Order: sequence, then C-alpha cells, then structure tokens
Amino acid sequence: MIPRYSREVMTSIWEPQSRFQIWFEIEAHACDALAELGVIPKEAAKTIWEKGNFDIERIDEIEREVKHDVIAFLTSLAEYVGPEARFVHQGMTSSDVLDTCLNVQLVKAADILLDDLDKLLEVLKRRAYEHKMDVCIGRSHGIHAEPVTFGLKMAQAYAEFDRNRERLVHARKEIATCAISGAVGTFANIDPRVEEHVAKAMGLEPEPVSTQVIPRDRHAMFFATLGVIASSVERLAVEVRHLQRTEVLEAEEFFSKGQKGSSAMPHKRNPVLTENLTGLARLVRGYSIPAMENVALWHERDISHSSVERMIGPDATVTLDFALARLTMVMDKLVVYPENMLKNMNKLGGLHNSQRVLLALTQAGVSREDAYRLVQRNAMKVWEQGADFATELKNDPEVSAKLSDAEIDSKFDESYHTKHVDTIFKRVFGE
Amino acid sequence: MIPRYSREVMTSIWEPQSRFQIWFEIEAHACDALAELGVIPKEAAKTIWEKGNFDIERIDEIEREVKHDVIAFLTSLAEYVGPEARFVHQGMTSSDVLDTCLNVQLVKAADILLDDLDKLLEVLKRRAYEHKMDVCIGRSHGIHAEPVTFGLKMAQAYAEFDRNRERLVHARKEIATCAISGAVGTFANIDPRVEEHVAKAMGLEPEPVSTQVIPRDRHAMFFATLGVIASSVERLAVEVRHLQRTEVLEAEEFFSKGQKGSSAMPHKRNPVLTENLTGLARLVRGYSIPAMENVALWHERDISHSSVERMIGPDATVTLDFALARLTMVMDKLVVYPENMLKNMNKLGGLHNSQRVLLALTQAGVSREDAYRLVQRNAMKVWEQGADFATELKNDPEVSAKLSDAEIDSKFDESYHTKHVDTIFKRVFGE
Amino acid sequence: MIPRYSREVMTSIWEPQSRFQIWFEIEAHACDALAELGVIPKEAAKTIWEKGNFDIERIDEIEREVKHDVIAFLTSLAEYVGPEARFVHQGMTSSDVLDTCLNVQLVKAADILLDDLDKLLEVLKRRAYEHKMDVCIGRSHGIHAEPVTFGLKMAQAYAEFDRNRERLVHARKEIATCAISGAVGTFANIDPRVEEHVAKAMGLEPEPVSTQVIPRDRHAMFFATLGVIASSVERLAVEVRHLQRTEVLEAEEFFSKGQKGSSAMPHKRNPVLTENLTGLARLVRGYSIPAMENVALWHERDISHSSVERMIGPDATVTLDFALARLTMVMDKLVVYPENMLKNMNKLGGLHNSQRVLLALTQAGVSREDAYRLVQRNAMKVWEQGADFATELKNDPEVSAKLSDAEIDSKFDESYHTKHVDTIFKRVFGE
Amino acid sequence: MIPRYSREVMTSIWEPQSRFQIWFEIEAHACDALAELGVIPKEAAKTIWEKGNFDIERIDEIEREVKHDVIAFLTSLAEYVGPEARFVHQGMTSSDVLDTCLNVQLVKAADILLDDLDKLLEVLKRRAYEHKMDVCIGRSHGIHAEPVTFGLKMAQAYAEFDRNRERLVHARKEIATCAISGAVGTFANIDPRVEEHVAKAMGLEPEPVSTQVIPRDRHAMFFATLGVIASSVERLAVEVRHLQRTEVLEAEEFFSKGQKGSSAMPHKRNPVLTENLTGLARLVRGYSIPAMENVALWHERDISHSSVERMIGPDATVTLDFALARLTMVMDKLVVYPENMLKNMNKLGGLHNSQRVLLALTQAGVSREDAYRLVQRNAMKVWEQGADFATELKNDPEVSAKLSDAEIDSKFDESYHTKHVDTIFKRVFGE
Repeated sequence: MIPRYSREVMTSIWEPQSRFQIWFEIEAHACDALAELGVIPKEAAKTIWEKGNFDIERIDEIEREVKHDVIAFLTSLAEYVGPEARFVHQGMTSSDVLDTCLNVQLVKAADILLDDLDKLLEVLKRRAYEHKMDVCIGRSHGIHAEPVTFGLKMAQAYAEFDRNRERLVHARKEIATCAISGAVGTFANIDPRVEEHVAKAMGLEPEPVSTQVIPRDRHAMFFATLGVIASSVERLAVEVRHLQRTEVLEAEEFFSKGQKGSSAMPHKRNPVLTENLTGLARLVRGYSIPAMENVALWHERDISHSSVERMIGPDATVTLDFALARLTMVMDKLVVYPENMLKNMNKLGGLHNSQRVLLALTQAGVSREDAYRLVQRNAMKVWEQGADFATELKNDPEVSAKLSDAEIDSKFDESYHTKHVDTIFKRVFGE
Repeated sequence: MIPRYSREVMTSIWEPQSRFQIWFEIEAHACDALAELGVIPKEAAKTIWEKGNFDIERIDEIEREVKHDVIAFLTSLAEYVGPEARFVHQGMTSSDVLDTCLNVQLVKAADILLDDLDKLLEVLKRRAYEHKMDVCIGRSHGIHAEPVTFGLKMAQAYAEFDRNRERLVHARKEIATCAISGAVGTFANIDPRVEEHVAKAMGLEPEPVSTQVIPRDRHAMFFATLGVIASSVERLAVEVRHLQRTEVLEAEEFFSKGQKGSSAMPHKRNPVLTENLTGLARLVRGYSIPAMENVALWHERDISHSSVERMIGPDATVTLDFALARLTMVMDKLVVYPENMLKNMNKLGGLHNSQRVLLALTQAGVSREDAYRLVQRNAMKVWEQGADFATELKNDPEVSAKLSDAEIDSKFDESYHTKHVDTIFKRVFGE
Repeated sequence: MIPRYSREVMTSIWEPQSRFQIWFEIEAHACDALAELGVIPKEAAKTIWEKGNFDIERIDEIEREVKHDVIAFLTSLAEYVGPEARFVHQGMTSSDVLDTCLNVQLVKAADILLDDLDKLLEVLKRRAYEHKMDVCIGRSHGIHAEPVTFGLKMAQAYAEFDRNRERLVHARKEIATCAISGAVGTFANIDPRVEEHVAKAMGLEPEPVSTQVIPRDRHAMFFATLGVIASSVERLAVEVRHLQRTEVLEAEEFFSKGQKGSSAMPHKRNPVLTENLTGLARLVRGYSIPAMENVALWHERDISHSSVERMIGPDATVTLDFALARLTMVMDKLVVYPENMLKNMNKLGGLHNSQRVLLALTQAGVSREDAYRLVQRNAMKVWEQGADFATELKNDPEVSAKLSDAEIDSKFDESYHTKHVDTIFKRVFGE
Repeated sequence: MIPRYSREVMTSIWEPQSRFQIWFEIEAHACDALAELGVIPKEAAKTIWEKGNFDIERIDEIEREVKHDVIAFLTSLAEYVGPEARFVHQGMTSSDVLDTCLNVQLVKAADILLDDLDKLLEVLKRRAYEHKMDVCIGRSHGIHAEPVTFGLKMAQAYAEFDRNRERLVHARKEIATCAISGAVGTFANIDPRVEEHVAKAMGLEPEPVSTQVIPRDRHAMFFATLGVIASSVERLAVEVRHLQRTEVLEAEEFFSKGQKGSSAMPHKRNPVLTENLTGLARLVRGYSIPAMENVALWHERDISHSSVERMIGPDATVTLDFALARLTMVMDKLVVYPENMLKNMNKLGGLHNSQRVLLALTQAGVSREDAYRLVQRNAMKVWEQGADFATELKNDPEVSAKLSDAEIDSKFDESYHTKHVDTIFKRVFGE
C-alpha cells in the first residue's frame, strides 16, 4: 500500500483513528450488555459512552512502554473516562477487540469494493449497449477467427464482474463475524449475550465457536476472493492492452487533451493504466497465499497471523479498490474505434466466412473433400495475394457451378454472426 | 497425482474412459436438440445414441496423426456410428465439448468432495460429543492458558469444515455451467437452445456468455476454494501433531496392533498421517495461483489454460479427496487420552485459575495492585518450586485474611470453564 | 506430470526402477566403506555388489504389509543377497537412503535441464546470427517505438537463458549433497567416513550438518530456480505469441506441410505450442511455494516435506524439461518474416524517426519548442492521413528552411538504429 | 511495509530523497561520460555536479501536472542547474534512470541484508559453542528419538544461514547491473561507453543486452532468494516456538525484568517474537510469485512490472531486514534451559538407548527376533509404568544372562551420541 496506488476512502479504514474508534465502540457496546446483565453498573456504561475518547499520540507513548496496543488504548481511554473505566473490558481479551475490529474493517472494505464493482458494472453495461452491434473480429489464439461485437466483449466483462460481485457478497459474509468470548474462547469470564449484543450493534454475526481468535479460514476465503477479482481485472486490462497495440488499434485508453505522448510520435499513446492494472493484479493475487498459510494456527491460537494481516489487510483491499476504480475510469473513457475494427476484420478479404461457404457447398451437393479443396484454393489466393474472397469464389467455375453470386454474397452478410447478440444480452442484462 | 495419494473414486473421473464418455453424452444430447430443431434428422440422433461408442486405443492412434483430440474422438465415434456420424458436432467447436466436459468432471469431483466433507463432519461431531466434557488445557502461543474441552476442539473443527462445505457448494455452482456456443461463442452456427438442452441433460446451467471458452474466473474460484479447504485440513492435522508430541501426548494417531513402531522404542509412534496431510495441503494450496493466472486469456480465448488444467484438475481434486478421506480416518480412530489431558493441565499446580483468584481478591476489597502482588508471589512459588497454588494461597495470611479456604477452593472448580460448552455446542450443532 | 507433457529421458529418473537402483548403490557403497572401516566383513560388501538385486513387484507386495518402503526394499534385497544381507544398512536410517537418493535424482534432472538449456542456447544463437540485421520495430507497451532487429530479440533471449543456465548450475550444487548420518544426524551409529565415501561414489558432497534429513532450504532454492527459468520460458513464448498475431505476423510457429489449420481458413495457424508453454510456466512457478513451505520442518525432522516432493520432484523437473525441449523446437523451426517486419515498421510512414528529426532541427538552431511544433504538425498528418513523414517534412517550408532534403533523408537511414548491434552481440556472444 | 516491522536503515533506501539522489548521480555520471566523448561540453558536466540539486515538493508538484516522475525530476534539477541542464539526459530514456536506480537500491538493500546475516551468523556461532555439549533429545515427528545437543541445533542453523548468505551474494550479483541504452535498448541515441562509465561509477556491471528495461528474470531471482531466506527464518522461529511450549520449555525468548507476562500467570511468557517472524516469513515468501510473473514483459518492454516493484521492492527488503534483525536479537538473548533438556530426555527412563541394547544383545549372540522381544518387553514396562529402563533390563534374567550390569550401563552413556559433535562443528565452522 503506497499513496500512488491508494484512495483515501479505503486507506482511512486502516488509519489508527478508525481502528481506535472501532475499538472504542466494541468496548462501549460490551459495557452496555454487561450493564444490562447486571455485571457492571448501568451508570458506568452510560459514562463510558459520554466521556469515552482516546488520544493517538498518548496511546503510542504508552505502547512504547508496555508493548501492548490494547492495554495502551485502554489506558488512554481511562484517562478520559475516569474511575468508571475499571468496568471496561471486563472478562474480555485483547483478541476480542482486535479480531472483531479487523472484521469490521474488512466489512467496511468489502462495502467499498462492492460499490466499486457496482460502478464498474454500470460503466460496462453502458459501453456494452453503446457498442452492442459494433462488429469486430473475434480472435482465438490471437488469430482472426469469426466476428463478434465490441458490445459482446463488454457483456462478457459485465457477466464476469457480476459474478465477482456475488463472490464478494459471500466473502463479506464470511468475515462479518464478532467474537467476545474471552480467553481461549470459552465464555468462562464473559456471558455469550455480550457477544450477541456487540455483534448486532456492529452489524456482525456472533462467531459460533471462536478459540480466543476468530478462525482464519474465513479470512483466507476473503483474500482468495480478492485474488480472483484481481485476476478478472487483469483479464480486462489485458484485453485493452491488446486492442491498443499499434497494429490493432481498435480501442485506446483516454488521453487528455494536453497530455503529451512520448515526445514527437503522435501514435505513442501507451496503455500505461491497464499495464499498471496488470501489475496490481499480480500483487493482490499474491496475498492469497500468506492468507491461506495463516489458517493453521497452533492449538487455540498463536499470533503468527497478525503480522500478515497488518500488511495484507490494507495492501489487498487498498490495492484492489484502487485497481477497480482505475479500471472503471479506463472503461468509462475508453476511446473505441469501430471503423478500425471493420478495417482489421476485412484485412483478410472475408476469409472469416470461409466455413460458411464450405457448408453452403456441401449443402449444394459437393462432397466435403471437394468443398474443402475449392474453399482452400480460393482462400489461399486471398491469403497470399490479398485478393477478395467473395470475388475469387465467384470467379471459380467449379464454385459458381454450384453457388450463384447471390448465394455467395449471402455468406458474407455479417448479420449472420450477430443474430444472437440480443439473446446473449438478454441472458447477461436480463432485458 | 500419484497412486500413493489417490483414491480410485476420484481418479476414475479423470480417466480417458470417463472423459470420452462425457464427450459422447455431450455430442449425443446436442444431436437430440439439433434433431428437435430440425437441423438434423431425428433418426440420426437416435442412431447416435444406439450405435455410439469409441475405442480409446484407436483415438490415441488417430490423435498421434492429426494432433487434435476432439477430431480423433469424432473419427473413432464415426467408425461405430456409420454415415449418420456426419450429423454429429454440427456447428460446434472443440471447446464446446472440452469445456463442458471439464465442468462435468469438476462437478463430479465436487460431489465426491462434498461426500468426503459429510463423512468428516459426521466423525467430528461424534468425537465432539464423545469428548464434550473432557477437560484439557487451552493453549495460546503454545503456552498453557485456561481450560477448554477436547469436545470444543472437535466442535471448532466441525464448524470450520461446515463452512468449507458451504464454500464448496458455492464453488460447485461456479463451475456447473455448459457452453455449446460455437466459434467465438456467438451462436452464429448453433442455436442457443442446443446449449440449453445439453446443459439440462448434463445437470448444468447454460453459461450466460461464453467466448468459445467458459470464462476461467469460475475455475479460479473453484481451485482457490479447494486451497482454503486444504488449509483447514492442515490446521486440524497440525493440532493432532501437536497433541501427539512426546511431552504432550493428549492424543495419538491410531496404530494397528501388528504395526511396529520404530524398532524397540514403544513410544515411537509418529504422527506420519497428519504430517503427510500437512504436505498435501501445501500442494493443493499451491495450485490456486496457476488457476488464478489462467483467468486473463487473450481476447476471445487462448489455450494457455489447458495445460494447467490437465495437471491441476486431477492433481487438486484427487489430492484433496485423498486428504479429506485420510483426515476422516485419522479423526475417526484418533486415540484420545483424557487422563493425560488432566495431567498436563495440572502440571502447573492450578495456575490456570490465577486470574479468578485475582478477581476474587479485588471483589473482596483488595486493590488491583495489591491483589496482583498477592497472586503473583504465590504463583511464583508454584512455578518455581512446583507447589500447589490453592495450598499456597490458603497459607498466605494476607490472602486468607480476605478469602476463606472454601472461597479459594471454589476458584479451582473447573466447571467454571466449561459452563458454556453447551451454549457453544448448540451454536455449532444446533441441538 | 502427465504423459502429454513428459519426455522419457526425464520421467525415467523418477521410475521405481531408477529409484531402487540408486538405493541399492547407496547401500552397497556404504557397505564398502563399512568394510573398509572393519565394521562389516569385506567379503560381505563384495557379495552385496555381486548378488545385490531387487524385484519391484515383490517390494510393492512387502510394502503393502509393512507400510515402509525402505524396509520393503531391504527385504527384497536380502532375498537376493542371502545371509550377508544382515550387514546392509548398518547404523543407517531410512532418511539416509531417501534423502541421498532424492538428491541424486535431482542432480540427474539438473543435468538433463542443463543439456536442454545448452540446446536452446545453441538454437537461439543460430537464429540470432541468422537474423542479426533483420530490422523490425521495437515495441514498448505494445506500441511502435524505434527499430531493433530480430537478431537482437534472439540475443536478449540467449543472454537470459544463459543466466538461467548459470542459476541452474548453482541450484544443482545446492542439492548435490549426501547424508549418511543415522538417526537425528549425529553419526552416533555410523562413522562419518561412510558418508564421505558414499558421497564421493555418488558424485555428491557430504552434507555438513544433517538432522536425519538434508535441510530443505536447499530444495526450496532448487525449485525456486526452476520457477525463474519457467518464467523466462513464458517470456519468450509470449513474444512468439505476439509476433504471430494476425495483425502482426512477423513470425510463426512452424506448421508441418500436411498439418491442417483450422478448417478452411489458411491464416488460422494458432501459436498453440507457445500458448501451451505459457501454461506450463504457470505450473512450474507454482511449485516453488510448497517447496519453500517445506523448509520449516519441526525439530530434527518431520515428514511433511515428503508428500510435496513425491509430487513436485517429478512434476517440476519433467514439466520444465518438456517445456525447454518444446521451446527449443519452436525456436529452431520458427518461421520468420523479415518482409512483414519491414511492412509493419513502415506502416507509420517513418514516424519512428521523429525524434531524430526533432534533434536535427534543434541542432540546426530551432528552439526546442518550435522544433517540437514543427515535427508534431507533420507527424499528425502522417498519423491521421497515412502520409509519408519524410515527404511531409520536405514539403513544410519552415522545416526545409532549416534542413535540406538530403539532411532529412539522412534521418531515415535505419542503420542509425542498428549501429550497435555488433557491440551488443559481442557482449552477449563474446565474439 | 509498515513502521511496526521496519528499520530505518532499510526504509531510508526507499525514501524519495534516496531515490532522487541516485537519479541525480546517474544523470551526472552520464554527463561526465558524454562530456568525455565530446557529446556535451565538459563545463556543462562540471556545472551539473556543482549546482545539481532537487526539491522533492517541487517534483511532486510538477509530477501532478505532467504525470511523469522523471520529467518532473529533470525539471526540478534544471531549476537548480540553469541553462546547462539542457545537456542532462541526452539520448537517455526514463527507464535508464529508473531501472539503474532500482538496481542500486536493491544492491544497497542486499548489502544491509548481508550485514544482517553476518550478525545472525555471529550470534548463532556463539550460541553453538556455548551449548556445544548441552545434550537434549532429538525429535523426529515431534517424538523423542535419540539425543543431540543444543549446540548442534545452532550449528545446523548456522550452516543454513551461511548457505543463505552465499545465495544472497549470488542474488546481489544478479541485480547489480546498469542500463543506459536509450529507447528500446539499441544505443542508437547514446554511446555504450556512457553505460560503462555510469555502471562503474555506481558499482554496477553494464547489462549485456537491455531492451529499454533491464530484464526481470534478474529481479525474479532476487526476490525468490529472499523468499528462501525467509523460509529459513521461519524454520528457526518454529524451533524456538516448539522449545518454549509449556510442556517442553527447553528455551525461551528473553523476557525483560519489568515486562509483565499475561496477568498473574508467571508461566505465560509467549513466544510472540518468533510467532511474529513466522508471519513475516509468509509475507516475504509470497512476494516471490508476483516477481516471477513480472518476467514475461511484452516485446521490448511494458510497464506492468513497475507497480509490483514499487510495492515489493520496499516490502520484501524491509520485512526481511526486520525479520533477520529480530531473529538475531531473539537468538542472542534466548534463555536456554539445559537442565530442562535433560529432564525431558530422561522422562522416558532411558528408552532412547533401546536400540543400542538391542544391538548389544545380538552381538552377544541373541537372535534379532529374541533380542527384539527382550528389549520390547522391558521397554513396555518403562513406557507404561514409568520404570527405569536400565534397571528393568538388569532385573530381566534373560537379559542379564547375556549382558552384565556394567555392559548394560555402558549402553546408557550419553557420550555415545555426542562423539561426533566435534566432527560436525569442524565441518560447519571449519575449526
């Protein structure tokens, strides 16, 4: 996580101010529940809410001494609350605060990422309809195959990110749990009703069985999901990079008016944003492995997961948020060149329809072997001499003996390829 | 995937016989739909089902020549079907067959893994109830903390694998899709209703928008989920390994009667099965990265994903199946030593109750600082001289001035720690 | 490791026959040393070499019973050797045999991989000199930049694989060690001179300090190195895939005469081999993570590394061997189209020389701002209307006031870009 | 990289101040070479060294506008240098500065890491000699096996980190290269002698063939090497964590006098530093995958590597530096309990010598089967009833018929196990 690839909306979740504020809320809500249960005076709970506060510099100062962040926080809190502070944190352990806080932060992060995805989906849908029928050559293996439309490309991306949205909803649910279960998670020192109260108040579910810590398979699943989403970011970024290649130039990242390309070469508009996204995807993907390694804590808990999460918690969420926002901006402003798409598609003189001609010949009674030979010899002329495929076919007596010029022309009608675009759009967008 | 770590039930999915059988079914179901749509004769579809067959050796022979597995298969099929074979595969591409088949295989694999999880859950639940109240020391950081029960450990594992089951249900849904959409996925050459028919017949959903290939974010999510499940396998395996350590010996992998330990040392029963599981988890986890790298195919498709999937498809599913089955066996037969658990717990003379004594003193009016000093000085005697904590407390005049012997004894009643075991079991097992 | 991506030369290393043969040699060499030290009779050592043999089916049969592969092997060996067999394996542990054998196998694998690299280097060098001066456009960000030559691309690949060769030499050294140190590695039961003898006989170095097992940081480094080499395979594969794109077509994977492209489209030659290599690289790279996780064995040893190595030992070496051999074949036969390179380069009407013109104008006394404006306005005409850059410049009075036609022409002499090809070749090939 | 896990010595390398200073030096040295070659005036080169400076805030301001960090830097530089600034960066590209700078930074980082390793090695050696003959039980699979010494454990760690040191020396060499080769790396616009001069001045080697960028296989190898070193950190950290377990307690992380353990339980000293190291190792290891994915840049270069390196460059080096320093501190102050080691070892009544007794019986003429039976029945009494093994053997008439009490006692002399400690130390420490 570095400023260059960060957005404030996400980094703010990971700021000390946010963390301590969440800690405070967890402690204060716990006090409410403890008061309700008669464990501490109701007045104390009220005081804590009223006077509760903390001073980050003071916390840092205390932590340097006691080397324990939760104790440092509680000490600072006590300095604001006064004697009632002794009722705070009764029967709780640090992990109750730390793990519940981490999950609150991850839930907040997930909400931002869901919002990012919504914005991206909106842009993709708009671009899909905008270019719904803009025909371009479909490519398998980087080689011209048969036509698709640019709208279909966008629809595919939409469907993929819509799946990612659903995955993230699941992942959010995975980590939306709360543990206030005390040492080794037995509730020996704290009533389970406290956990239920805090969970509800913080928008979480009680963790069914914690062991002082919330089990880390939840977090592994969360970060793995971010890794998958990042991989989809890479896919769309790579598509743009390919389309912007000098020889292809079917689309381009937006270039602001004043922005200078590389010195004097006007074509030198580099797809640096999508290249950047490709790298960011590698990072987010990479964080999933340490997250999975975090699962096998020793016995009821060890603290090896902590250093990993202090890093990848912010790193993965901030980087993915930045990447999604950047991707949305790139797709929103992407300059699309439908005329270049046609030019590229027609570069091969109509060869992308060769299979249809083949089929027409066999339907006209030519054996498959002969049909293949006929198509092939005309296709080779197109390929090697840059001729026009339909013209060659019409000039080939063996072909014209079986297919009229009109019949041949009908095989070069591109609407053949796009006749199910509506079907697919209906599947993807439901309308 | 090697025989040593494989079970036939899972490897059989990946055998050529299974693969070609699925290919046949996809092609034959597609013919049914094509016949229904009037594209091919109904009689032809019938004949294909009746005479359809294939010969693996023949397929291999043809593939060596044409270097294309689907063409080789279709040729072998044609040799059984006869002239009607020309109606097979009309308007389809190889990917329609390959991708739909892979997903059928992954769905079958998921079903086996779900069954594996069910068996594991059953065993964990039984062991949880069996040892529900067998107290053992809870350990944070590998250090004695406060008591838990062995049943709670099992309940935690149950809850974790129950989550994994739900994750796998999602992952199964991710890859339960079918694509029969022809070249570059536009349905130009094949009616979408064929896809709908085949999907239904094969127990899949139509892929909303494919691009000749089914998008690989689905598979990435599937393999990432297996990686998370494997990480949970590691967690439980590591727990057993810890419990079996010579100095701990609270549980042991089952050792068959005749089985020789390492030569003459009867204690030399090594937790080799759970160590093995630890290694297998590393493998399954590792496969998630190439699966994520597979997402960013070029344009409508390239074939770089194929070699990855030919390896990790079998490797990940077979290894995880083997690991889950082995873990179930280990947990089923795990030899548990409740008496050693007590012995270990009491090794520290009751120190695990020191906090309760501290609390009792403060409640009896001693200041927190003084209470700490009193507890600490008696605890140190226990720690350094192996004394009994309750006895020391009773003999300390400053303590006995505040707490009666009965009151002190009451702080050493272990039921304090287990009073919410029922609550937790209810949460986990719902009963 | 599946037959499709395997070569017999490498898989044979991992066959039971090879493994047991190495085991036999380790045991027999150890007997020689033990005999020399007077621990066992010299005659016994001789007999072991003379009669020593094993029967794989028999070993499997015994292993199914005793569940210990080394004991099963020793039993089979004893059935051939007779009573002298009791002198075999004296003071040794299974790990002495297993770990030393694994390293022998990895060394053999490394030797094959080194040979693979030598062959690849030879091909790359030949292609480099063959196309040393074949000019093609250099691309940064996929966008035309300035000219390079195809020979330079090959020289770059040569230098990269030459580095990989050196890395592999280091990696080979890492795992070329032998441990015959007995239980927990103390030599309590076996003289260190036995290890020295066996090491020498097997072409290894004695492991300075083993702990029953050879430390796994060595293997981690080995597999990480394979991961880096695989990443270089990917780089060159991706280059070929890019060059073969329909719009670029500067090179193509060789297509055998009879080989059919996709049906009737003669341009549909797909770079399937390099796409395949891209996938294989993902696999080999992925194995490096479990190899690193294997390092932290518990205390003197646990056996969690074993299952990982049984899989990735063959998987990584066989896959990389196959990939290198395939890459060598691809590069050997790569069809290169220098004329297309020129066509592509000139597609932008000479714009790749715009910086040189800019520089010439400033040297002719034009301010940098004015020079930029002059170049830019002519470049735009080229870019937007497909004009010829040199012509436009000559026709621009402001330009021609400063630069003569000859001077302008001199800025379009491509030898400017290639003047240091020799320098670079000398650096790379030393000649 | 977060302050909690960072040391200033390493983070300072990655500060803007350091980066811009390196940029300045690269540019100024290049000017020297250009002046020497007569491309720019010698006076200009002199002026650049004399007046050359930069203002970070000003650079940030300019970069916000032009979105190009090198241009922003050059502009700021020009504001200090004056008109001579036009001679700076002649014929160079941004990558020349950026890539050379990154390598300078990585070399500096490697030097700090080498220093870290030297300090760790020194501590390990000291602790090895200190505890050279402190016997403790060796454990395979976590189960008591035969004795080793604590010194041997340290010697093993020393040998492992000594290998890591050598690996890092190689890795440092990998990235100690310089590229000043201009656009697409052809030296078209800059004489190769400039590169040679700058390389020498910056302590680097010229990159034999760059393509505007320095090839990323070098960096992949560098970061993979850090991943291996981190895995060794994990191994030693896990060893400490195991030794500190309550039931084992053979060593403990140092606990400062005033430092409070967890509340009132004096045994609650948690190995939090080594747990922390375990987590940090996961992070560093994880960065190796994106580094390997960075290798396959498109054609002469794309910029996808950049975002990865901006993150993992600091993250990997800072985290590993912190981890090594922390590990050194832990090992330096590790509290070792030789008496507990003996207590643990003897917990099994001498069973760890059972194999020696077995061997003595066979040497006294007992068949292997009978010897096994005799040893086994006495061992079982020890195991099940906590008896003393030697005593039981002496009391067994069948045993005493073959072995005198003195002969039995001689099998319990621990010097048997340590007789080759000197040999191993000599191998490891060469003395």
